[in-house]
Amino acid sequence: MSGEFAFISWICAQQRATELVQVPAGDDLAILKWDAQDLLLVGTDQVLDGVHFDSKIHSAWQIGRKAMNRNLSDCAAMACLPAAAVATVAFARGTSMEYARQLYLGITEAADAFACPIVGGDTASWDGRLVVTVSILGRSAGIEPVRRSGARPGDFVYVTGPLGGSLLGRHMTFEPRIALARQLVSLAPVSSMIDLSDGLSRDLGHICQQSKVGAVVYAEQIPIHDDAVALGMRDGTPPLEHALHDGEDHELLLTSPHELAPTIARRIGHIIAEPGVWLERDGNRQPLKPRGWEHTF
Amino acid sequence: MSGEFAFISWICAQQRATELVQVPAGDDLAILKWDAQDLLLVGTDQVLDGVHFDSKIHSAWQIGRKAMNRNLSDCAAMACLPAAAVATVAFARGTSMEYARQLYLGITEAADAFACPIVGGDTASWDGRLVVTVSILGRSAGIEPVRRSGARPGDFVYVTGPLGGSLLGRHMTFEPRIALARQLVSLAPVSSMIDLSDGLSRDLGHICQQSKVGAVVYAEQIPIHDDAVALGMRDGTPPLEHALHDGEDHELLLTSPHELAPTIARRIGHIIAEPGVWLERDGNRQPLKPRGWEHTF
Repeated sequence: MSGEFAFISWICAQQRATELVQVPAGDDLAILKWDAQDLLLVGTDQVLDGVHFDSKIHSAWQIGRKAMNRNLSDCAAMACLPAAAVATVAFARGTSMEYARQLYLGITEAADAFACPIVGGDTASWDGRLVVTVSILGRSAGIEPVRRSGARPGDFVYVTGPLGGSLLGRHMTFEPRIALARQLVSLAPVSSMIDLSDGLSRDLGHICQQSKVGAVVYAEQIPIHDDAVALGMRDGTPPLEHALHDGEDHELLLTSPHELAPTIARRIGHIIAEPGVWLERDGNRQPLKPRGWEHTF
Repeated sequence: MSGEFAFISWICAQQRATELVQVPAGDDLAILKWDAQDLLLVGTDQVLDGVHFDSKIHSAWQIGRKAMNRNLSDCAAMACLPAAAVATVAFARGTSMEYARQLYLGITEAADAFACPIVGGDTASWDGRLVVTVSILGRSAGIEPVRRSGARPGDFVYVTGPLGGSLLGRHMTFEPRIALARQLVSLAPVSSMIDLSDGLSRDLGHICQQSKVGAVVYAEQIPIHDDAVALGMRDGTPPLEHALHDGEDHELLLTSPHELAPTIARRIGHIIAEPGVWLERDGNRQPLKPRGWEHTF
C-alpha cells in the first residue's frame, strides 16, 4: 500500500459532520460547537507495544479497542459522557494497510459504543514498535463531574466488580463503566470516584491523598475475580493479593455516605480521618502498601 | 529516581486553576468551562525519535518544544487561539528525572508563549525510543476558523516566509505563526490556509484537493531560505527544489482574493479552476508533483 495519505483518505471518507462536530477530521484541526451547558472534560492515554499489549499476541483490532477504552474508562471515572476523541498511531515500519485499518476499526468500534466520533489524528511509521495514543473530550451532560478529592470520613468505599488477574486477558477486553457511573450518581451522592487502572491499593491511595483522608478496607469483602484465583494457582500468589494490587481492572472505585445495593456496587471499606490506607483482616489492621503498576524510568 | 508518580506529582504541583481550567491535571480528566461564544478546535500530533527528531542530537527541551509547536502551528493554520493541551510521553527506559523535566519544560515553555496550559497527560517507560504526543484545544476567539477548502479560482496564493532546508535545524526551532495568522485574517479575506509541514508541493495539493481547484506557482516568486541554499550546496539539489518539496517549514500557505503587502506575505501563485498543481518557469507550465514528506508503512 502506498502510505500515510491513502490511509488518512480512507479515514476521512468515513467522517460525518454532526451538530457537535461542525468540521470532522481532514483539516488542520476539527471544529466543534460546544454546548454552553456542558463542562468540557479532557484527558489522554497511550498504549505501548510490550507494556500495555503485546502485538505478537493481541490483534490490531484489540489494541485499538484497548487504547480507546482506557480513555472511555476515564470518562466513567468522572461520570461524564464521551463527546469526541483524536488518535495518533506510530506504526512499526512494514505494517500492512489492512493492519492499520483493523486498528482504526478497533478504536472506532469501541468509540461508537458510546457515540463518540474520532475527529482527528496523526499517523507515522518508524523503526520502533507500535504506539497508540488517544485523547478524549467528555461532557458533563447534566451531572457534576465526580472527582478524586471529595471522600470524607465516614463515607463507605465501594467497587463495581470483582478484581485481580486482569493480565489473563481482561486488561484487553474490559468494558468502560460509563452507564454504571452515571447510574450510581443518580442513585446516591458519590463523593469521589476513580477507575481502577493502577490497582486497588494504589488507586485508593490516590483518592485518599487527594481527599486528604485515609481508608480501611476489609479483606473478606474484597470481591475476587476468577482470574485472580486462576493466576494465583499459576504463580503461587494468594488471589487476594492479586485483587488488591493488580492493575487494569477498570472497575470503578468510589465513595459515598449512602448505602448502595450490593447488586450495584460492593462495599469494601470506609473512609477515616487519619491518612493512610489499611487492610483489616481477622480484626487486625495493617498498612496496605501500593504494589500496583508503576512505570519506572 | 523513583518513577512515574514522582514525575506526575512534580507536574501537578505546577498546575493552576483558571477561569477556563476549573480542574487542572491530577484527576482522571481535567475540567474546562468552555465559552459558548467560542468554537472548539481539536487536533493531535506526535513526534518520534529517529523520525521527527534525533535524541542523540536534540535536547529533551528542544524535543518537547517541537512536539508542542507542531500543534500550535495547527492552530495558526486555522487562525484560532490555543486554549489548552494534553501530552503523553513514552520514555526510553533508564531516562533520568532531569531529562523528563527538561522535556516537560520544553513543552510548557512553548505553550506558555501562547498562554496555553497543559491540563493533562500520561507517561510510561518502555524498551523503545522516545515518543511525545500532544493534543490541543483551540478556540475561535472572534475569528471564523480558516479551512483548507475555501480557495476559489482567481485567488492569489501566498506564503509567509522563505522555504526549504528546514532539516538544517529550523524543523526544531520554528515559531508557530499564530499572531500572523490572525493579523492576516484581519487584513483581508483569507479563503484557505494550511501550515507547511509536508512541503509546499504537497500542502498546496491538500488545499487544491479540498477546495476542488488547481493552482499555478511561479518558480521565480518562491522565497528560498538560506538553509535551502546551504543544503543544496551540500547535496547538489537546486535550492528551489528544497523550497518546493522540503517539509517542516511551518510557515503559512494561504489564499486570498485580495492583494496583500509583500511585507506580510509573499505572493507565489494563483488558483485556477482546473485541478492540479503547476509550476510556471520561463513561461512554461509543468506539473508540480508532491515530493514532500510521506510516511510509508
